Amino acid sequence: MSATMKAAVKERPAPKGTVVTRVPVPSLRSDEVLVRVKIASICGTDVHIYNWNEWARKRVKLPLIQGHEFAGEIEKVGSDVVGLRKGAYVSAEGHVACGRCHMCRTGNAHVCKTVSILGIDRDGSFAGYLKVPAENVILNDPDLPPELATMQDPLGNAVYTVTNANVPGKTVAIFGLGPIGLMAVALCRAMAAAKVIAIGHENKYRQRLASKVGAHLVLESDGGLADQVLDATAGEGVDEVLEFAGSENAMRHALEIVRPAGGIHVLGFFNGPVALDLSEMVTKGVSIHGIHGRQMFKTWAQMAGLLKSGAVNLRPILTHTFPLERYDEAMSVMISGNCGKVAFPMEP
Amino acid sequence: MSATMKAAVKERPAPKGTVVTRVPVPSLRSDEVLVRVKIASICGTDVHIYNWNEWARKRVKLPLIQGHEFAGEIEKVGSDVVGLRKGAYVSAEGHVACGRCHMCRTGNAHVCKTVSILGIDRDGSFAGYLKVPAENVILNDPDLPPELATMQDPLGNAVYTVTNANVPGKTVAIFGLGPIGLMAVALCRAMAAAKVIAIGHENKYRQRLASKVGAHLVLESDGGLADQVLDATAGEGVDEVLEFAGSENAMRHALEIVRPAGGIHVLGFFNGPVALDLSEMVTKGVSIHGIHGRQMFKTWAQMAGLLKSGAVNLRPILTHTFPLERYDEAMSVMISGNCGKVAFPMEP
Amino acid sequence: MSATMKAAVKERPAPKGTVVTRVPVPSLRSDEVLVRVKIASICGTDVHIYNWNEWARKRVKLPLIQGHEFAGEIEKVGSDVVGLRKGAYVSAEGHVACGRCHMCRTGNAHVCKTVSILGIDRDGSFAGYLKVPAENVILNDPDLPPELATMQDPLGNAVYTVTNANVPGKTVAIFGLGPIGLMAVALCRAMAAAKVIAIGHENKYRQRLASKVGAHLVLESDGGLADQVLDATAGEGVDEVLEFAGSENAMRHALEIVRPAGGIHVLGFFNGPVALDLSEMVTKGVSIHGIHGRQMFKTWAQMAGLLKSGAVNLRPILTHTFPLERYDEAMSVMISGNCGKVAFPMEP
Amino acid sequence: MSATMKAAVKERPAPKGTVVTRVPVPSLRSDEVLVRVKIASICGTDVHIYNWNEWARKRVKLPLIQGHEFAGEIEKVGSDVVGLRKGAYVSAEGHVACGRCHMCRTGNAHVCKTVSILGIDRDGSFAGYLKVPAENVILNDPDLPPELATMQDPLGNAVYTVTNANVPGKTVAIFGLGPIGLMAVALCRAMAAAKVIAIGHENKYRQRLASKVGAHLVLESDGGLADQVLDATAGEGVDEVLEFAGSENAMRHALEIVRPAGGIHVLGFFNGPVALDLSEMVTKGVSIHGIHGRQMFKTWAQMAGLLKSGAVNLRPILTHTFPLERYDEAMSVMISGNCGKVAFPMEP
Repeated sequence: MSATMKAAVKERPAPKGTVVTRVPVPSLRSDEVLVRVKIASICGTDVHIYNWNEWARKRVKLPLIQGHEFAGEIEKVGSDVVGLRKGAYVSAEGHVACGRCHMCRTGNAHVCKTVSILGIDRDGSFAGYLKVPAENVILNDPDLPPELATMQDPLGNAVYTVTNANVPGKTVAIFGLGPIGLMAVALCRAMAAAKVIAIGHENKYRQRLASKVGAHLVLESDGGLADQVLDATAGEGVDEVLEFAGSENAMRHALEIVRPAGGIHVLGFFNGPVALDLSEMVTKGVSIHGIHGRQMFKTWAQMAGLLKSGAVNLRPILTHTFPLERYDEAMSVMISGNCGKVAFPMEP
Repeated sequence: MSATMKAAVKERPAPKGTVVTRVPVPSLRSDEVLVRVKIASICGTDVHIYNWNEWARKRVKLPLIQGHEFAGEIEKVGSDVVGLRKGAYVSAEGHVACGRCHMCRTGNAHVCKTVSILGIDRDGSFAGYLKVPAENVILNDPDLPPELATMQDPLGNAVYTVTNANVPGKTVAIFGLGPIGLMAVALCRAMAAAKVIAIGHENKYRQRLASKVGAHLVLESDGGLADQVLDATAGEGVDEVLEFAGSENAMRHALEIVRPAGGIHVLGFFNGPVALDLSEMVTKGVSIHGIHGRQMFKTWAQMAGLLKSGAVNLRPILTHTFPLERYDEAMSVMISGNCGKVAFPMEP
Repeated sequence: MSATMKAAVKERPAPKGTVVTRVPVPSLRSDEVLVRVKIASICGTDVHIYNWNEWARKRVKLPLIQGHEFAGEIEKVGSDVVGLRKGAYVSAEGHVACGRCHMCRTGNAHVCKTVSILGIDRDGSFAGYLKVPAENVILNDPDLPPELATMQDPLGNAVYTVTNANVPGKTVAIFGLGPIGLMAVALCRAMAAAKVIAIGHENKYRQRLASKVGAHLVLESDGGLADQVLDATAGEGVDEVLEFAGSENAMRHALEIVRPAGGIHVLGFFNGPVALDLSEMVTKGVSIHGIHGRQMFKTWAQMAGLLKSGAVNLRPILTHTFPLERYDEAMSVMISGNCGKVAFPMEP
Repeated sequence: MSATMKAAVKERPAPKGTVVTRVPVPSLRSDEVLVRVKIASICGTDVHIYNWNEWARKRVKLPLIQGHEFAGEIEKVGSDVVGLRKGAYVSAEGHVACGRCHMCRTGNAHVCKTVSILGIDRDGSFAGYLKVPAENVILNDPDLPPELATMQDPLGNAVYTVTNANVPGKTVAIFGLGPIGLMAVALCRAMAAAKVIAIGHENKYRQRLASKVGAHLVLESDGGLADQVLDATAGEGVDEVLEFAGSENAMRHALEIVRPAGGIHVLGFFNGPVALDLSEMVTKGVSIHGIHGRQMFKTWAQMAGLLKSGAVNLRPILTHTFPLERYDEAMSVMISGNCGKVAFPMEP
């Protein structure tokens, strides 16, 4: 094993500014493992850092190897690590929780206040190797192809959202047809939702993907939306709304189209405050659930079972792969929106 | 039994405009019962109708006998009614649900779309007698004093909100110290909440009442609130927030002071859209629950048990009584805010 | 419409003793509807009555038209019935609840203490027509074939059991491969259970049916069962067990093969007391849930959605049909066990 | 600090066989803390080991310092421990979970398969000092007296059982009036249960204690029990049953007296298989929940809040204290049953 590895390093505090180069392989703490990356995929957050938006400028310290979605093989195991061995086929939960705060101690590590995130607060997976706390390592089913295994971090977001809505037999409206929204469509279908209504904006590429992964109906989030949803649900409205768009418009529609005593499950991030008709929420007896990350590691266990079932149609969502050297190109496809998930297979 | 009865009749579509007069005792349908009112109490909604505000102008048809909170005795039973008899000591759920819509059929009658409400959509309890569908009648425990029994409709709102928050052992912040907020304070104490923080605005009368019914801490909803709540909760924030104020300011504070993975339970009505930092809600993994009415009749059963326990300190909340003849005076006390619950005991 | 109809009437208090004959069409109360039966199917309970077993001798009064599973068309509507009309395509919940007891009033009508059941306590569906309280009528989706619609009452049992176990992504063991057990297999598959293990006894016919409706693994409930289940679940045991067999042996296996903090959901009836290792249940932190009937009408709403999803593979379960005239033959197929669901299509 | 400490050491594999002597103060691993014990209390399990019953003979290796209930002060902190400091006032969760198994990783550490228990599988708290994994340490509220703090491990059992039953406003029957059963009585009262029925056998001492901590009604588990409970609940039966007795008789009564759709929550251990009428459980739609240990550390957080509320009347439960030197005497009081909780205050 070489002492250096290929890596995409964000060097300059400006849009783009990433160089694919060779850097030292990270050294391990006693409670960490070193993973050889087989494939890594791009999250929307990676695009924010790449574009060096306002959030990134405040949060991120450079230089940084981005990336928190991956599948790979354990190369080396820290001296205190028990139960993991070289050669194991793994992915990882991207949120490194502190383990000691009130939230971590009471089953809410997904909202640990001092969380550190792979590829954001510490070096990540757009490289030949990355190091991960043993606690965060997920052992993958050998039958799970790396192209799906790398998507588990965002798929976990979708699983948490969809299971929070308990969809079997229900009508569901899904706002936002990025990769996580598309995964939610596939999950709802896999769990026998009665009707899955996927709602995007103009992007036809993603609307087609929504159909491909099983949406019964694909609509656009415009003026006529509420009427179309009521038509599609015998006038009752949908039982559950899933929001992945981070859109004020979507939230307003959500309150309009959800049936009384229904639920709105929100994973999206919003650019500013959102004006909501809370009296409508109260009169209808509707709940709005903020969903963050993945429950550690309950969501991962449920996700493993869902993947094992073979019922979740995820393959159409991975639309593009690039060698790491074509990093800028991969990012520009992400920025265009004419894609599902974009990934970097790593040569051995 | 006389053919006429005393009643407060809202006659004119204008503020005030209520006349205490004699009118015919209502005649019964086969599925209704006639109740002789022993005591009736005033809800905030009654003040809105009395004041003939915008909502009332749209919703209410005159003339109307207002009032949906009461305790009394069954005087007469419709021909199809089974299981109720003359002389029974009763109150009633104020929401008359249709019983056939999708919501009513699936355990959500409290959000029936075609609900009709006593004292709003049909004549109510500010009278010697009122008629109520047998379905809505609640048999009171003989040991429950009428002064408490009349408060059950709003107490049910508080019970539904507080039980939705599952408060035993938790820290709870309560916004809004009107009668329902005060009931929630008493309920949280009765259920062994760890710390109950009551939050009002300037009204000192109601702040004193909050202390009287057991608030550990009474605060005002101003600039320093968040810091005071964090101080009182070892920096963690409260586990649950209950919102009875219908205040945008309260909702913003709520998102600030609730701990990650906590809950916000909203019964209040808002005058317009409320601008919320939903990204904060998502990052914290917080849920916001709209609470409407009372679950029929699960909330009533639980409420009966809570009243039976003797642990709920409600007596300080009933602060004023007036004979029905002093209707305007009672309403002006309500409008002043220097009161808890205001009631009309009826002479036999 | 004729004044008489064909009906299978259990006349004699002895095994068999049923005559297919003509009897008067039932007359309606004001809150009932008359349904022309298109197809009716046989429940295990019908066999008990046919066989005149001990339970039947205690419970059933003769003469009786059996049958509570059916699909048909409303022929006539009682004078007080609102919202149902002649010609509607319907089935019905078989449990006629009182509507007034503590259970009925608090969302637990499925365990009403004074329930009366179609085809057991009052005439049922093995006839040209039956009358049903309007409250119990279920409007079927026009796209749902009568052969599936008639199975909804037992399917509702399965839906209630399976949804109580919240199976998506979980491993599930199902004891008892009669029609309801088979439906549960199909439902678990439809909801993306990770692994569905169907467990029968020697009956190969039903084991084959279990495979046909999607069981990943079909086992026999004998000595080696626990080891086989542990092998199939990486040594963890299954997340959830569903018991439809009413077998002491199954319950013992259930406690052995369920993982810690898992659930056992029991619909089966047992001939006598069952000796259980409750210390094992406690040490493992396992829950055992008694499941009865269908939640009115929450289960029916969820079932309609599941059927609408098209994901539930029920068609293989209906294995035999007979004209009503061949009643004894149909019953003997049921008794043989070499069948799934057996039904009587009615000629118009 | 001396190199040795006083300790009660179970030396001989026979009943009694414990010597109070001086032994070396335990040495620490890097992830452990050393606690100076201020007070330690006796669990029923300690009596089993003292009596060297069948279970103890199989499970326990001698010599052993027993005891897992205590309150004390941190004396020394292992080199890898973060967030705990010398002088902190602490107790501990007695179950040392592995942290890596499927159960530990999915929020079910309380049913970890390879758990090691303080005072059973490793030296415990009947000594001047004990060592505890940092992970298991609970920081006590400074206002909580050591006499109550030492009871938190069993109190946590009671909190888990009572909160699992969600008792506010409900009628509750409690079988078994040992210390945990008595704590459950106090907890149910603190949370406004409508009626708390404590059920013991002949032991009058504990029946008096049950009244002292708030039972509305104290009954004996004999032939007339079911009728007495039905009388006390208007013929409905109790909403929830809590079983702390480990008694077949109690379980049979439980199924008889619980209302339909109610719950039975079982913490008790049973000497052998228990014959249950599962058909009754199914027909009534009742659930039986096995409760083990305490949820780590959700139950502890809720318990801290309940203790903070001041509403839980626990003081009468600690009935006896002895210096450690009078170990045999303390054990014989425990064996007599004429006691609540028995504790050893340690001199400094």
